[in-house]
Amino acid sequence: MINYPNKKSKFTTNKINHSNRGMSFENIINETNEYYLVHDIAVIHKKPIPIQIVKVDYPSRSGAVIKEAYYKIPSTTDYNGIYKGRHIDFEAKETANKTSFPLSNIHLHQINHLESILNHGGISFLLIFFKAKDEIYLLETKYIVKYYKRSKTGRKSIKYEEIKEFGYLIKEGYSPRVDYLKVIDEIIKKG
Amino acid sequence: MINYPNKKSKFTTNKINHSNRGMSFENIINETNEYYLVHDIAVIHKKPIPIQIVKVDYPSRSGAVIKEAYYKIPSTTDYNGIYKGRHIDFEAKETANKTSFPLSNIHLHQINHLESILNHGGISFLLIFFKAKDEIYLLETKYIVKYYKRSKTGRKSIKYEEIKEFGYLIKEGYSPRVDYLKVIDEIIKKG
Repeated sequence: MINYPNKKSKFTTNKINHSNRGMSFENIINETNEYYLVHDIAVIHKKPIPIQIVKVDYPSRSGAVIKEAYYKIPSTTDYNGIYKGRHIDFEAKETANKTSFPLSNIHLHQINHLESILNHGGISFLLIFFKAKDEIYLLETKYIVKYYKRSKTGRKSIKYEEIKEFGYLIKEGYSPRVDYLKVIDEIIKKG
Repeated sequence: MINYPNKKSKFTTNKINHSNRGMSFENIINETNEYYLVHDIAVIHKKPIPIQIVKVDYPSRSGAVIKEAYYKIPSTTDYNGIYKGRHIDFEAKETANKTSFPLSNIHLHQINHLESILNHGGISFLLIFFKAKDEIYLLETKYIVKYYKRSKTGRKSIKYEEIKEFGYLIKEGYSPRVDYLKVIDEIIKKG
């Protein structure tokens, strides 16, 4: 039972007329997944937030009301599903940091989970939103693992330049908003 | 916001000395998945129960307490993950019925979801526990869809004999308890 990290911060930017302004990063990814689902491109869903339920009331036959519950640490990542027969698994994170992505943003067991998915033949990655730059990158698990290992003796974050070099910048569009499966196509092609 | 169906009924049997006695079907599947995870055989998790959170208190810095929340209808199935590079997706259901599995036990959108996973190259199915017979069957999505279609004009359930004929009986073991991946191996072999 923990204080659940705030994931609801806004997908904002200082630039004017930006399509994503005011919409949360999470919502934009959900909207993108909805687009994939409706167009039968992929079946990728956000997992519900894990909750420890302690007390439930039944004020009427029609409904139960949860009166006491606590956030739990998620044991896996937020998103998974299937695309072109491949298992897809990822976590989406945003940072206000301009120069790096702090590894404290992601739980160790989530990194382990992403690595495990990769080892079992799935495609796993992190979507990183740099709010200040208004840029979204897809970074494959192998790099997350690499930089996590480095953090044990060195810097506790992945430099923006490193993400720029090894990750994929995802251009925003109208529909879908964050077409990360285009990048997955490249990754599949590379084998 | 709905009254969440009772999934916690006990995995009980009238037979004596039965290994599963008193343990819920859900717990046995979770234990099996834990076995697969620990032995690095597969990465399959139960999704959290979807909850609509309405009110959260912050009585202290260390923790948030959810004071009002409601169960939501799940939009997908309970379990998914990866095994031998294949996307796995299933729902687990139990019934006290001795002669058939009532299709009312499973939401239409869950059937659609299972079919969608199948169409995208994944392996999807239902695990059905007949409590009175103390038998667990794995039934592939193609049969669920077939019998669902029949239910529109005919019987609203799948006969036990049909499940016995087209499904796979999963023998219970000590560890893992319900080794459904053995059946998945057969399904993969058949292509």
